[in-house]
Amino acid sequence: MKKVAIVGGTGYTGVELLRLLARHPEVEVCAITSRSEAGRAVADIYPSLRGEYDLAFTKPTTQTLAQADLVFFATPNGVAMKQAPDLLELGCKVIDLAADFRIQDVSVWSNWYGMEHACPELLDEAVYGLPEVNKASIIGADLVANPGCYPTAVQLGLLPLIEQGLIDTQYLVADCKSGVSGAGRGEAVGSLLCEAGDSFKAYGVAGHRHLPEIKERLCVANDGAVGMTFVPHLVPMIRGIHATMYARLKASEHSLDFVQGLFERRYKDHPFVDVMPIDSHPETRSVRGSNMCRIALHQPQGEDTLVILSAIDNLVKGAAGQAIHNMNLMLGLKETAGLNIVPLAP
Amino acid sequence: MKKVAIVGGTGYTGVELLRLLARHPEVEVCAITSRSEAGRAVADIYPSLRGEYDLAFTKPTTQTLAQADLVFFATPNGVAMKQAPDLLELGCKVIDLAADFRIQDVSVWSNWYGMEHACPELLDEAVYGLPEVNKASIIGADLVANPGCYPTAVQLGLLPLIEQGLIDTQYLVADCKSGVSGAGRGEAVGSLLCEAGDSFKAYGVAGHRHLPEIKERLCVANDGAVGMTFVPHLVPMIRGIHATMYARLKASEHSLDFVQGLFERRYKDHPFVDVMPIDSHPETRSVRGSNMCRIALHQPQGEDTLVILSAIDNLVKGAAGQAIHNMNLMLGLKETAGLNIVPLAP
Amino acid sequence: MKKVAIVGGTGYTGVELLRLLARHPEVEVCAITSRSEAGRAVADIYPSLRGEYDLAFTKPTTQTLAQADLVFFATPNGVAMKQAPDLLELGCKVIDLAADFRIQDVSVWSNWYGMEHACPELLDEAVYGLPEVNKASIIGADLVANPGCYPTAVQLGLLPLIEQGLIDTQYLVADCKSGVSGAGRGEAVGSLLCEAGDSFKAYGVAGHRHLPEIKERLCVANDGAVGMTFVPHLVPMIRGIHATMYARLKASEHSLDFVQGLFERRYKDHPFVDVMPIDSHPETRSVRGSNMCRIALHQPQGEDTLVILSAIDNLVKGAAGQAIHNMNLMLGLKETAGLNIVPLAP
Amino acid sequence: MKKVAIVGGTGYTGVELLRLLARHPEVEVCAITSRSEAGRAVADIYPSLRGEYDLAFTKPTTQTLAQADLVFFATPNGVAMKQAPDLLELGCKVIDLAADFRIQDVSVWSNWYGMEHACPELLDEAVYGLPEVNKASIIGADLVANPGCYPTAVQLGLLPLIEQGLIDTQYLVADCKSGVSGAGRGEAVGSLLCEAGDSFKAYGVAGHRHLPEIKERLCVANDGAVGMTFVPHLVPMIRGIHATMYARLKASEHSLDFVQGLFERRYKDHPFVDVMPIDSHPETRSVRGSNMCRIALHQPQGEDTLVILSAIDNLVKGAAGQAIHNMNLMLGLKETAGLNIVPLAP
Repeated sequence: MKKVAIVGGTGYTGVELLRLLARHPEVEVCAITSRSEAGRAVADIYPSLRGEYDLAFTKPTTQTLAQADLVFFATPNGVAMKQAPDLLELGCKVIDLAADFRIQDVSVWSNWYGMEHACPELLDEAVYGLPEVNKASIIGADLVANPGCYPTAVQLGLLPLIEQGLIDTQYLVADCKSGVSGAGRGEAVGSLLCEAGDSFKAYGVAGHRHLPEIKERLCVANDGAVGMTFVPHLVPMIRGIHATMYARLKASEHSLDFVQGLFERRYKDHPFVDVMPIDSHPETRSVRGSNMCRIALHQPQGEDTLVILSAIDNLVKGAAGQAIHNMNLMLGLKETAGLNIVPLAP
Repeated sequence: MKKVAIVGGTGYTGVELLRLLARHPEVEVCAITSRSEAGRAVADIYPSLRGEYDLAFTKPTTQTLAQADLVFFATPNGVAMKQAPDLLELGCKVIDLAADFRIQDVSVWSNWYGMEHACPELLDEAVYGLPEVNKASIIGADLVANPGCYPTAVQLGLLPLIEQGLIDTQYLVADCKSGVSGAGRGEAVGSLLCEAGDSFKAYGVAGHRHLPEIKERLCVANDGAVGMTFVPHLVPMIRGIHATMYARLKASEHSLDFVQGLFERRYKDHPFVDVMPIDSHPETRSVRGSNMCRIALHQPQGEDTLVILSAIDNLVKGAAGQAIHNMNLMLGLKETAGLNIVPLAP
Repeated sequence: MKKVAIVGGTGYTGVELLRLLARHPEVEVCAITSRSEAGRAVADIYPSLRGEYDLAFTKPTTQTLAQADLVFFATPNGVAMKQAPDLLELGCKVIDLAADFRIQDVSVWSNWYGMEHACPELLDEAVYGLPEVNKASIIGADLVANPGCYPTAVQLGLLPLIEQGLIDTQYLVADCKSGVSGAGRGEAVGSLLCEAGDSFKAYGVAGHRHLPEIKERLCVANDGAVGMTFVPHLVPMIRGIHATMYARLKASEHSLDFVQGLFERRYKDHPFVDVMPIDSHPETRSVRGSNMCRIALHQPQGEDTLVILSAIDNLVKGAAGQAIHNMNLMLGLKETAGLNIVPLAP
Repeated sequence: MKKVAIVGGTGYTGVELLRLLARHPEVEVCAITSRSEAGRAVADIYPSLRGEYDLAFTKPTTQTLAQADLVFFATPNGVAMKQAPDLLELGCKVIDLAADFRIQDVSVWSNWYGMEHACPELLDEAVYGLPEVNKASIIGADLVANPGCYPTAVQLGLLPLIEQGLIDTQYLVADCKSGVSGAGRGEAVGSLLCEAGDSFKAYGVAGHRHLPEIKERLCVANDGAVGMTFVPHLVPMIRGIHATMYARLKASEHSLDFVQGLFERRYKDHPFVDVMPIDSHPETRSVRGSNMCRIALHQPQGEDTLVILSAIDNLVKGAAGQAIHNMNLMLGLKETAGLNIVPLAP
């Protein structure tokens, strides 16, 4: 059994790691830390985990964490970059579920995240953990930046088109919708049931931190600049992201059937992407609790605007599940170990 | 007191007419009809109306309806067009809340609605009841086509831009989200709480009946063809429509301040459109139960794509409230009579 | 026009007072206070009130408040009792929507609320503002304690039975369910959509502060001690309280028809209690946004346990609406002024 | 691998069986039937099962079903009783998830279910499948009546008290709350999101079919008559049942600690009952998707009324999970096989 530790286990990403790792056949959680809850049993905070873990939260000392083969940071932005260097030094592998290592351009990162980067020298070594793009690099990596939730849904929907040069990459639109768990378990008025419930709104239209992440990665695929308008919205539901993407085909001779075939081939060997039949409408509940991304393609009225629909569970494929996928690759385990979950519907 | 009748009062549009008309100072409901519920008291089906109406549902005979000064059709598509000619003949004014008179091009209508039109000769006379465009014509009209819910939210967000020729009208995107009440009170698996709840999806991407309505009206404003990709989505909430629209400015010298000023001037004399300050994010709950449309404008990163956000209550400004607005104009009453409602939030 | 002021206007009770007072024909809001939001416009925090108020929040000085004929305290427990004496001295009437004046027994109050009472000498003068019991006293009162939300729903369901001595008052059960707005707009993890949504639980079973309030008032009606088990639950909805009460009839000869008649007579002259037909099931949405309490009676299988169902909107009849009802009585206005609202359903 | 078949697989109970059986290590689904959907692939109706099953729905012929070692009936009441005799004859074991074999008293059954029983002679042989009571009998059974959802939650909360004679069994109260999935996937107005959402109500207070089932089973435990008032309520959530039970202790010397110990011993060897610490409040989400029943005990103010809280997932412990538990026992498999699921929270 491999040993892993989780830093910052009281948030939704942390508890989701615990849920998934409780059934992982080759990994055990040796430590889970929280400054504020140190000493408290895991099941006290999450009764859904009663009987699953004997662990109590501890303080996040390097000593405690260094027992682990791999450490997950399920912490706010800016935490992992301070502690990762020591852990890497001691031979631990590290996966950051926050944004510290997602963006290579450190000045872009500092602008959007409003702080200096604590270890820019590690960015070179950090691998962007989207297995559908970087599987080989992840296998050899010691430090992985787990992608953001929106960037996961958006990239999986656009990459095949960009890689093949089929679309106008200057005027992409990603209209994205997220459940409220994306805002975390923090006490925020906007996440109250009475504020977010039975209502719908856009937020952060002027600029959301996931935009530079998406653009940097799409630029790599495009081998050149990409123009994108990205608008996130808040949906009165707990889990789920749905991205609706609009892209103009460069040449009108490309039929939807051709594009559908392209997507199917692109993701054939990737167990967590499901290309649905043409004209499907993926529901977020069809991936609830699972690591699957479901994608469907449309070409309304046969015109030259493609509509790509992409649905994930933001806490799984958008966070903890993708992190475990990366862990499996980094530790030489079976790619799908612990992630073989049937979605919960209804 | 003017007298009005409602045909098809058991659906959500019908009951919303009843809610609003119960407090209208100058109108009384003299008849409400339903084939399936004839004989049953209104409050039996809608306990929220206990004590408000003594009426029972009756059969929709022309004789019953002809007592009214104005008849609302809150019926499925294809009903009003059969009964309106007789009522008009007898001197009743008619407002159809369904789609029978919304589209002037009868062949387009037949294609999308899958039936022959029963009285194409009335289309000339029918006025499209969007008061922010057609107030003068509505005042003199005997027959008004109440706009669809999506078309209301989308047109109010795009009209000022199109009228002034500021945007590229060939590649408009309207990414729209509706609460489940938009699907009506019919028994449909997809509208069950366990199907639509805690989930999000697109639907009808291949083509939704509100698209030809939107395009026909925008073409009038544009004095030429318009290209639009329209994708509706289902939100796990009861009421509300949120339209997120993407449009490219033709000339980059138009600042967001300029566009904001344009919207404010355009809607200055229209009591039910609220142009919010730049960078606002209208929530659907901020219009819940009211006839208001709230609009906000964004120009992310100062690039040339405008993002227009538009929020309405689909049952009020998107249906019953707009119908009463039209009724007020047609019957010579105060424009805002009976519609002076503070939204219910939280 | 009478003038009123609201202390603590940023919570749900405060904004609900604003919603209702915006349409009150004889009252205007002259000041609204909030320490934390002083200087901010009301519509900034509640966009649903855009266009309704020009007011900005101010600091709650006695000077500001004393302009008003009547001051509402929509504050946490323990605030009104400090400021009320000065305001009463200056001739303002006062309604406290919190608990400071609800319980006459000051030692019971201190035990449950965990603080010393600041002005026990005012308790004698304070009138418990349940108009269905105390209308005459409220009319002459300067200081009214607005009842709690649960106590309102429970008392209206049990009072007719207790007043007539029909039930065993030693083993009453009140199983109550509340929407999340009952917990207020404070930042609390338990009120997050992701914690309270799509789930159901009891809370405070060991003892909830509304229990001593209910018991004290029922003892008055009973002219003797009352035994009650009160269990509150949290429902994944925004507004609404549903109380399900179980009481054993003393004498089996009392038929349900007899009890129904008793309730109908008891509430005949009370405009905000609706005794529904036998075997009805009041839904909380049937009172959403309105000041109505709907009650229905059942006697399952004809046995001697009565089941009483009582539904209110916790923010209206359970808080702001009842406060305005009390204000109308205290200021000599029409009892129903400003409260003539049709519930919002669906 | 054992083979099982499912009759009536399109409802929520059917799809939940499919979800759970997809990961069962020793069982495979050889047939799934539906008259209305015959020929359609399972994943067409439930995209959450894409990639899990190659099966299409077939017609429910005895021939098809008889290939299986065990047949689940996930059908409406009245179906299993017609087809079970033939299947038992052919050597199949049968579990009925509906009510046909739940009640031994055939006249009581006929009264409540409004039909004649088709095979009363099988009732003797039918075992009531609550493993916490009947494990030994289930192991040897060919025909098992899977308990109702409410009866499961209620019995598990009351049985230890009744078996030990600690409470007054003449005035039990079970105030129960269910998510909307309990009403099934049928097209019913009352289950629409716009009817059941953001609202709360009681239903069936006059008499619900689960009452005679509960009473019959509690009478067996009590060895004598039992009096119960049972009131079900509808909660605006998808899954979950919460039962709040009120029982009076016969002797006041029994402390809550004593009762707690009794429950812990009673359920020590039962893997799917979790007796939580005193004063806990089980949330339905803490069992979402799992077969666990969580129970907590309270004695408010130390008086002689016990409050017992019991929470299950109605589709798992209240239906499909309990059926698989019964299947495991009947087929000689490990009791917990396929049911080792961590609840999905948030």
